[in-house]
Amino acid sequence: MKMKPSIEENMLYSMVNPDSIAFFGASNNHASMGTSQLNSLLVLGFKGRVYPIHPKEKTVLGLRAYPTVANLPEAPDLAVIVLPTKIVPDALKACGKKGIRRVIIVSGGFKEVGDMGIEREDTIKQIAATHHIRFLGPNCIGVVNTHHWLNTTFMPCTGKPGYIGMASQSGSFITQMFDYLSKRGLGFSTGFSVGNEADIDIVDCMHYLDACPHTKVIALYIEGIQRGRAFIEAARKITIRKPIVAYYVGGSKEGKKAGFSHTGAMAGPDKLYDGVFRQSGVIRAHSIDELFDFCQVLSTLPLPSNHKIIVQTHSGGPGAVAADAAGRSGLELAKLSVETTDKLKPFVPHTGSINNPVDLTYSRNPMDFFSTIPDILLSDADVGGMLIYFLVPEATIKRGLKTLGVPEESLAKEINQLMDGLCKCITALPHTHKKPVIGYGFSRKNDGFVKKMKEMGLPVLMGPDRAARAMAALFGYAQLKTKIEKSG
Amino acid sequence: MKMKPSIEENMLYSMVNPDSIAFFGASNNHASMGTSQLNSLLVLGFKGRVYPIHPKEKTVLGLRAYPTVANLPEAPDLAVIVLPTKIVPDALKACGKKGIRRVIIVSGGFKEVGDMGIEREDTIKQIAATHHIRFLGPNCIGVVNTHHWLNTTFMPCTGKPGYIGMASQSGSFITQMFDYLSKRGLGFSTGFSVGNEADIDIVDCMHYLDACPHTKVIALYIEGIQRGRAFIEAARKITIRKPIVAYYVGGSKEGKKAGFSHTGAMAGPDKLYDGVFRQSGVIRAHSIDELFDFCQVLSTLPLPSNHKIIVQTHSGGPGAVAADAAGRSGLELAKLSVETTDKLKPFVPHTGSINNPVDLTYSRNPMDFFSTIPDILLSDADVGGMLIYFLVPEATIKRGLKTLGVPEESLAKEINQLMDGLCKCITALPHTHKKPVIGYGFSRKNDGFVKKMKEMGLPVLMGPDRAARAMAALFGYAQLKTKIEKSG
Repeated sequence: MKMKPSIEENMLYSMVNPDSIAFFGASNNHASMGTSQLNSLLVLGFKGRVYPIHPKEKTVLGLRAYPTVANLPEAPDLAVIVLPTKIVPDALKACGKKGIRRVIIVSGGFKEVGDMGIEREDTIKQIAATHHIRFLGPNCIGVVNTHHWLNTTFMPCTGKPGYIGMASQSGSFITQMFDYLSKRGLGFSTGFSVGNEADIDIVDCMHYLDACPHTKVIALYIEGIQRGRAFIEAARKITIRKPIVAYYVGGSKEGKKAGFSHTGAMAGPDKLYDGVFRQSGVIRAHSIDELFDFCQVLSTLPLPSNHKIIVQTHSGGPGAVAADAAGRSGLELAKLSVETTDKLKPFVPHTGSINNPVDLTYSRNPMDFFSTIPDILLSDADVGGMLIYFLVPEATIKRGLKTLGVPEESLAKEINQLMDGLCKCITALPHTHKKPVIGYGFSRKNDGFVKKMKEMGLPVLMGPDRAARAMAALFGYAQLKTKIEKSG
Repeated sequence: MKMKPSIEENMLYSMVNPDSIAFFGASNNHASMGTSQLNSLLVLGFKGRVYPIHPKEKTVLGLRAYPTVANLPEAPDLAVIVLPTKIVPDALKACGKKGIRRVIIVSGGFKEVGDMGIEREDTIKQIAATHHIRFLGPNCIGVVNTHHWLNTTFMPCTGKPGYIGMASQSGSFITQMFDYLSKRGLGFSTGFSVGNEADIDIVDCMHYLDACPHTKVIALYIEGIQRGRAFIEAARKITIRKPIVAYYVGGSKEGKKAGFSHTGAMAGPDKLYDGVFRQSGVIRAHSIDELFDFCQVLSTLPLPSNHKIIVQTHSGGPGAVAADAAGRSGLELAKLSVETTDKLKPFVPHTGSINNPVDLTYSRNPMDFFSTIPDILLSDADVGGMLIYFLVPEATIKRGLKTLGVPEESLAKEINQLMDGLCKCITALPHTHKKPVIGYGFSRKNDGFVKKMKEMGLPVLMGPDRAARAMAALFGYAQLKTKIEKSG
């Protein structure tokens, strides 16, 4: 295995970590796309120098504007171009002459519109080659690097810096995920919208995300891979260090048509891509929820050593759904040893069940559910991982404390302390046992507890079916990784 | 086709619409299950008479308590029993002697725990038969009827009265959905947790929900159907009037094991159930999200006359995902006529695409996107239904209005007016064209607009894939319904 490449040497480093940016197409008209994009950059608090290029305005969004890049006091690390299609080639040429070597071309009207567009795309490729420019796009929305306060997209990024690195053939899978991820306590490290991939493609982005120390897992949105061999080679190297999860939408006839008219990408049959992903060690997601569920568990949990899981619940239905979904995803229910069931007996009420799912119906003491019982279950050699159901424990704890006579005024503090304790117990389990534990629930109501657990590194997913499929993804990754490592 | 049965004649009417209730097992100890359940009933504001039965207490939760049912001033319409397993038979006998004819037995420890439990269940069945009692359970959490302020579950129901009728073999699929549905602007009309189905079963509940005027669609959570023939017969009659959506979890080996230890239900192979559902006209959901997505669209939208859909978007990725998911669900992309594309041209910018998906990239005027364009598309004879992508339009509208010089102080009012107008346009389309329109987005941020649309009856689902599958469910229902109607 080769040494991991250093990030500074990566071709995309200066694009994603620029000290200075020339910005074409922003004005003081707030309805224009370019203005929105410059605004996003400023809102996030970019620390470097920004030079709006505008033929007439003296200032743009309060920054000194320049009529051309030729007038700039330096050659910026990056140029962002959000101009009408026709004038993109000239802007790109001007960048080249100034010595700018990284460009994001947001403008559309190239390969994706056919005939004339294909010619136009060839023109900008030639200009870039002549001037040693590497560019992202065209027909993209650019990049976000939350660890560098960089956001060139039209959507303000308000969430916290995160650990999911993404390369996407759809800009929406970057911008629309800001809010989606933030609500789940997740976020991007760096996200690339690759557009038509006329120069920089998804494989280049994967290499960058591999080298990026903030990125724990790589998410891909794919409508069609252009460099199949390069993709497989890159993915096989990366996946040993970092998991890669892909959502591929070109596999159906209808998806293929749509993808082609979107970015001109050539999609292939579903089975072909299944094969490519398996060969590459890439985990395939089948929905947007799965893409990020899988990213979350793959970057926070130890991998299961086998495919047998235990389901712990205090309610039959959510246990049955978890078991059924696990079965459908290729997992099995572990068979508990006599030793384990003997240890469990004192903690399970007569209405409960010591089969698998272990359905407690209720527990006398919250510590039983959050510490003692899962500890016993994870100690069983047959158990590869655990799915555990959480039901609004905040309300239950409150009721319990009230009954114990805790006065109203100290209730909040006591609840918080107790919850902290329970969270510490349960979130420690994956590490103590080196086995994955995935929580699940249905509701985000009273979810202070769930939030705490997520912060402490235990994923809690929405619904037993999603938790089960995420566990299957962990097992799938463990298998692929081992296979690739063995095959050298 | 027989006349629809009147609801008052239904065997479950007095259980779900009682004027008076005897409540066993509530006390003044807030940690007990029975107390929580009585509390839920009081919190929802039940209008009838409630008689707690308690051997010692004079009052329970502020209500006058009675030592036995024999002492009650009347024979209540319903008794709810949340007692230790051993004393359930005696309580049931006492109810019978008093003349109570409907009972909910919440207590567990019966068939689901095996041997001894099976005997106990036979005992209560005999007692019930002797006294002409019809009972729900045991091992259930009871019923909720939001239109009668009735909630016998342990979970307070805070959402608005809704139109989804549910019968569930898991109590959690009632209680945990209160919050889940409420957040989506949905709610139960009546929900039954059927438990072990020792007497009243899921088929009985379906008959009630069929007759219930508040119920527009029937949702089922199934681990195993006991009376297969009765289920099919009932469903075939009901489904012509009201759609039925089922989530079945017994189909995998693991799901079957789990279901058996939960309620003792005998599950069958997935294929068998697929056949049962198809024969019965029941739409099958494969996740909890699907169950309620399907319920929502089936109860609010006209049915598609063919399986060809149009996707309208202003962003390629969300369009491609919708197309791909539609293809995987058996739908096809409609082929627009030359007449339609000619009509469209003036409204589509040069960066956009007049294929299907129709990707506008942006629109000059919001009315184009929300009224003119979908109107043109739905007028095409090949189009059976529409999926349409909505991207945080509130923010876009605000920016637009600001640019038009609308002063800050009147911005909120102007936005509201404009959004009202757009909502009226788009929500009118399914009715004007008699074709279904399903919206989708990713984010709930700035979702005033989305909320408005839902209130006006246009479902907006989370993600293009979910919207596409919901459209396929509409088409599936249209097909099954026609088939059943034809076969008489």
